[in-house]
Amino acid sequence: MNTLTRLNEPQFSPHTLNKYATLMAAGNGYLGIRACHEEAYTDQTRGMYLAGFYHRASATETTELVNLPDVLQMRIELDGEIFTLLSGSVVDYQRELDFASGELRRCLVWRAPNGKRYQIECLRFLSAVQLSLLCSRIAITPLDDEADVTISTGIDATQTNSGRQHLDETSVRVFEQRYLQGCYRTLDGSNEVVISSFCAVPANASNSFYAKNRRLTQHCSGRVAKGEAFVLVKTSWISSSLDKDYRAERWSERSLDNLMTCIERGYEQLLAESAERWAQMWQRSRVVVESKNPQDQQALDFALYHLFAMTPTHNERCSIAAKGLTGEGYKGHIFWDTEVFLLPFHLMTQPEVARQLLSYRWHNLAGAQAKAQKNGWQGALFPWESAWSGEEETPEFAAINIRTGLRQKVASAAAEHHLVADIAWAVDAYYQATGDENFMQQRGITLLRETARFWISRAVEVDGKLELHDVIGPDEYTEHINNNAYTNYLAFHNVELALRHASQDQDFKRQAEDFLQRLWLPQPDHQQVLEQDDTFFSKPTIDLSRYKTQQGTQAILLDYARAEVNEMQILKQADVVMLAYMLPWLFTPEQLEANLDYYEPRTIHDSSLSKAIHGIVAARCHRLEQAYQFWQQACLIDLGDEPHSCDDGIHAAATGAIWLGAVQGFVGLTVEKGELHLTPRLPQEWRSVSFPFCWQGERLQLTVTHQQITLRKASVRPMTIWIEQERVVITEAEFCTPVTGSGTTKEVSQ
Amino acid sequence: MNTLTRLNEPQFSPHTLNKYATLMAAGNGYLGIRACHEEAYTDQTRGMYLAGFYHRASATETTELVNLPDVLQMRIELDGEIFTLLSGSVVDYQRELDFASGELRRCLVWRAPNGKRYQIECLRFLSAVQLSLLCSRIAITPLDDEADVTISTGIDATQTNSGRQHLDETSVRVFEQRYLQGCYRTLDGSNEVVISSFCAVPANASNSFYAKNRRLTQHCSGRVAKGEAFVLVKTSWISSSLDKDYRAERWSERSLDNLMTCIERGYEQLLAESAERWAQMWQRSRVVVESKNPQDQQALDFALYHLFAMTPTHNERCSIAAKGLTGEGYKGHIFWDTEVFLLPFHLMTQPEVARQLLSYRWHNLAGAQAKAQKNGWQGALFPWESAWSGEEETPEFAAINIRTGLRQKVASAAAEHHLVADIAWAVDAYYQATGDENFMQQRGITLLRETARFWISRAVEVDGKLELHDVIGPDEYTEHINNNAYTNYLAFHNVELALRHASQDQDFKRQAEDFLQRLWLPQPDHQQVLEQDDTFFSKPTIDLSRYKTQQGTQAILLDYARAEVNEMQILKQADVVMLAYMLPWLFTPEQLEANLDYYEPRTIHDSSLSKAIHGIVAARCHRLEQAYQFWQQACLIDLGDEPHSCDDGIHAAATGAIWLGAVQGFVGLTVEKGELHLTPRLPQEWRSVSFPFCWQGERLQLTVTHQQITLRKASVRPMTIWIEQERVVITEAEFCTPVTGSGTTKEVSQ
Repeated sequence: MNTLTRLNEPQFSPHTLNKYATLMAAGNGYLGIRACHEEAYTDQTRGMYLAGFYHRASATETTELVNLPDVLQMRIELDGEIFTLLSGSVVDYQRELDFASGELRRCLVWRAPNGKRYQIECLRFLSAVQLSLLCSRIAITPLDDEADVTISTGIDATQTNSGRQHLDETSVRVFEQRYLQGCYRTLDGSNEVVISSFCAVPANASNSFYAKNRRLTQHCSGRVAKGEAFVLVKTSWISSSLDKDYRAERWSERSLDNLMTCIERGYEQLLAESAERWAQMWQRSRVVVESKNPQDQQALDFALYHLFAMTPTHNERCSIAAKGLTGEGYKGHIFWDTEVFLLPFHLMTQPEVARQLLSYRWHNLAGAQAKAQKNGWQGALFPWESAWSGEEETPEFAAINIRTGLRQKVASAAAEHHLVADIAWAVDAYYQATGDENFMQQRGITLLRETARFWISRAVEVDGKLELHDVIGPDEYTEHINNNAYTNYLAFHNVELALRHASQDQDFKRQAEDFLQRLWLPQPDHQQVLEQDDTFFSKPTIDLSRYKTQQGTQAILLDYARAEVNEMQILKQADVVMLAYMLPWLFTPEQLEANLDYYEPRTIHDSSLSKAIHGIVAARCHRLEQAYQFWQQACLIDLGDEPHSCDDGIHAAATGAIWLGAVQGFVGLTVEKGELHLTPRLPQEWRSVSFPFCWQGERLQLTVTHQQITLRKASVRPMTIWIEQERVVITEAEFCTPVTGSGTTKEVSQ
Repeated sequence: MNTLTRLNEPQFSPHTLNKYATLMAAGNGYLGIRACHEEAYTDQTRGMYLAGFYHRASATETTELVNLPDVLQMRIELDGEIFTLLSGSVVDYQRELDFASGELRRCLVWRAPNGKRYQIECLRFLSAVQLSLLCSRIAITPLDDEADVTISTGIDATQTNSGRQHLDETSVRVFEQRYLQGCYRTLDGSNEVVISSFCAVPANASNSFYAKNRRLTQHCSGRVAKGEAFVLVKTSWISSSLDKDYRAERWSERSLDNLMTCIERGYEQLLAESAERWAQMWQRSRVVVESKNPQDQQALDFALYHLFAMTPTHNERCSIAAKGLTGEGYKGHIFWDTEVFLLPFHLMTQPEVARQLLSYRWHNLAGAQAKAQKNGWQGALFPWESAWSGEEETPEFAAINIRTGLRQKVASAAAEHHLVADIAWAVDAYYQATGDENFMQQRGITLLRETARFWISRAVEVDGKLELHDVIGPDEYTEHINNNAYTNYLAFHNVELALRHASQDQDFKRQAEDFLQRLWLPQPDHQQVLEQDDTFFSKPTIDLSRYKTQQGTQAILLDYARAEVNEMQILKQADVVMLAYMLPWLFTPEQLEANLDYYEPRTIHDSSLSKAIHGIVAARCHRLEQAYQFWQQACLIDLGDEPHSCDDGIHAAATGAIWLGAVQGFVGLTVEKGELHLTPRLPQEWRSVSFPFCWQGERLQLTVTHQQITLRKASVRPMTIWIEQERVVITEAEFCTPVTGSGTTKEVSQ
């Protein structure tokens, strides 16, 4: 395995403070911490978030992931000069996130306004083993003279979510003149978080402690000789009432006990333990690619780093937010992105995590059933956006239109119902990959049946046919349409799955069979193109080239009202292309191409979910150059040059899509009807790709080059796989076969 | 009249950002705005406060003055460089607050990190005429080349009080692509504030508007030639539901109408109108001093500037907070400081304002009566700290002791009752100075009687005598003592005043007479010293010199527990000296000296109220050198070099005390038994002092030198005044008399 890459920040710039705070964020699925500098900058949004720790600040606000008190900030004075990289000059600067260990390192030489130089090294990591544990270390070495160093740091509860405060400070303490502790409760009284911190400081340093205005602060001062380091190691333990082992009694004492136990082990030891866990995760899932473009490997490592960082594996009441735990975009809410873009990765690398993500939905069935009932339907209508309770969290109205003063109703919660079928699709994917009957009996079948019952009740009869009216597909530029191809086919798939697993319920069986028989499924036209909805072909087109060059910015909405966009063939992302990704067997190779060719020119790709999916479908069409371009562009959604695209958090789904593009697109590893299919279509730029995956309880390692496919298994248990349309039964531990060439490049002019 | 001074900030320093944000704050009694820079700094606390606009963020918090959305901040990019004085270099820097007009001016030349120089001039003022009006103007002139300028500014509601959020954003709008408006409501729904802003920008600039995350922002970009100025004038109108003319209906439209009307007049015209109002205020009250030390005049101008800025004259439901409207210290609460330290200035310059300050108490009588009743007493027990409602706002418990985890009960609200008598004292002072029978009949007598009833009910009988047990005098280092000299004498004075004005109530009369007859009034010992309370003389003394050198820092509490301090002869401020200031006729000259000599060495002066009062009493002892030292030190409480002493707001009472020191101390202008007394005792450093004042409806101008007293009257109505122990009746418009010398300097060794 080649060495894990690192993410480097090329230089300090006040313009990209938030971009790198996001890209280099720490996370262990339990906690997420933005990679903010120790020293504060007015333009940098500091943030620490606990998975599932949501609160609603007031009746007019939306439930959101709470920005917790800050423990990383340090106010540093060096010989009386306040350390900030805005002043003086930055003589040397390196910052890197080490994907191998999750450690963030910054090393710099700062020349203060008074001319003196100081070397400052900052290290930190969030433990992958003890999820509540955050360690940081700062070493300051004066290079020109001895120096007075003062560091003020503590627990700062003045943090807000853009001015919205969620926490009451219930207690701030200093124990034994060493340990800081702050206890906070959400304003509604429902949850609490306890933060304990300890700073190991030089023996000759003087310390004092203050608590005021929601800040508990330790001031540490000392003198250090030229060339020697003033080292402060800060260890923090962050836990909450959401923890499984939570008990209100003695919770704060236990936080302190845990902290003390960690401190004894020291930064290096704790880091080594955490790095060991990271190594296991990489071992289990890393995609290694030999590419002409080294950024391809980096993009894959970046994606997987964040896939680990964002995924709460400790509690099945949590799921993955649209921005992971890296920022406040989308208020930390959970969307269909999780099932469709993120679950496949986990399914192939840690199926138990996929099971857990589905369990999140199962726990929230009651809310989904209530939402269906409230709207006059049956079964389970999962919320478009959900948080802890599983209730609908989509704001009823969009932000006020500052020109008209009007608030528009948000349509997603009312009509973007495809996520119900997406969840069923993911249940099926899980079952196919694991054969986990236990899960199906306890949770899966219920999910399938309740989602199916929703569709059955939602259909309306038109001339004896059943239709799905007034929906929004994944393409949010086309709202309130009838018989959206994506939605109808996925709903059909949903009911079909439920029927397969729940056929003993006669009443349901009868209803399901009737639904499947009568549901209108849009058919390809004479050009083999599937109409996105009943009226799509009748709408006018416009030249989108201007908007395509500004992809992701929704610039079209500056020129056209949403209602106008709705009445043209303008797509945010292409539903039929998405459908082809989800249910590939519906499309003949010709249909696949025809639909890609029809819809792509009409698609702005304003959704971050669009490019990677187009890349996969292009790969399936054997258009490798186009596919690779799409994939590369998808890799740049966060990693690209745009300085503000991920200010409020990474595009979580896009990281999943980077993996999907490689595995499902270029390697062509997919599942159909319970069987594994492998159709490699490596881009020319790639010499090989190799990754581990799980299938039906077996751990495998697949390596693909342009010439050969190698599959290593842990056992000699026979397994079936379709390789390039040919069914193969593999019994050996290592299986090799040449690539036959059905993956030949095939490009069309754009 | 010599020219009004200006307050200059000598240089830009990141260490004194909050000191100068306080010292140079704008205020018109309705609004107060900290003098924060346009560009934000992490260490600078931005703040805008509306008099009386309080809210309590949660059940565990205290009611506090709300930090309103920010309108002054500007994010400035010059040729792509973010403007901050931390980066690049400051070639030239001047900032001054012009006391004559209230205008704050900053002019600087900044060399950006890319080497280019820009001249930036920032002006702003809060109108003294239209209290809701805030104007600011920024002019950016590139000195080396043409330049791209981008300014982003708007209405920023991410502001909090140290993380506590009080406001819901109810609406953000942009009208006619020009006018910004944000409407906010307190979380408890009880009050609203509307902010409207308009930016006049260069004709060729491009503009765009955004609203997100509680920020409504206008981005303005343009190109400007070398040597030419890019000018943006921002006009804002801030109004609230506390306004007298408030009606919920069309309130936001009226805000906009008012803004538009102002905009038409333009910055210069609006400033001229406001400056004219300032000129009237200075005319009516300025103290002009010819001193060897020019900082004396500056201190007086500074004090009076803030006395205007802090005093709400628009609404008698408002009073003056301990930090005025300049910061969040003491949560914006109102203390006894108002009546004792601030009211005398207003009484002598604008008696109608003094009347209004007393009316604030009268409106809040119900709360004071309820508090008395709740504690088993009668009459009115005014809250130690009050806000809008007049209820007790002192937190029940002090901040948590971070070492023990315990919260101590705050004793002030339970026992620091002298403020009840202080209010009565102020009612009497008002009546003596104005003879306002109307006020007395409608409000004053009720205040006197209800406060007196409190004392009568509070006294306990001991061996036939009445005593006042378990009180705290102004000296907060001595708690829960019996028969505090200050409290007993002031309570006696209170009941005496009530009896004088309310003798027709026979029941009350009987009770009052009994109280006056039997109340124990501590008597001077054989050294002529009045014991501060029943046990004071029995307590040990310690050497306080260490703590005296750190006055104002409460350093003693780092070495001793509060309970230990309580059991020693250690004073925060000296109650008996304070008593001598309040009721001077109680002391013979010998007693005055004896008490000053006894108590001063035992006083740390940790209270900002201490020094100036000692100065006045020293002057009355004819110890002019000592008095002048005390006064100079009192002038430095905010203006001194200590970089953080006024970070959370000015010491409002201390500004009143600067005036008191000059007028009551050095000029010796006091009122006793309804008559004016004048006993000049100018310090050697002063050649003359001259100021206007009001007395019984007459406006006078008094000028005092070491040789002569000159009194100018507006009328020839005869008036009586005691000059240096001699009763004089003045009929002429200008009266001169030599200083006889009873003010001879008399120093004792310290």
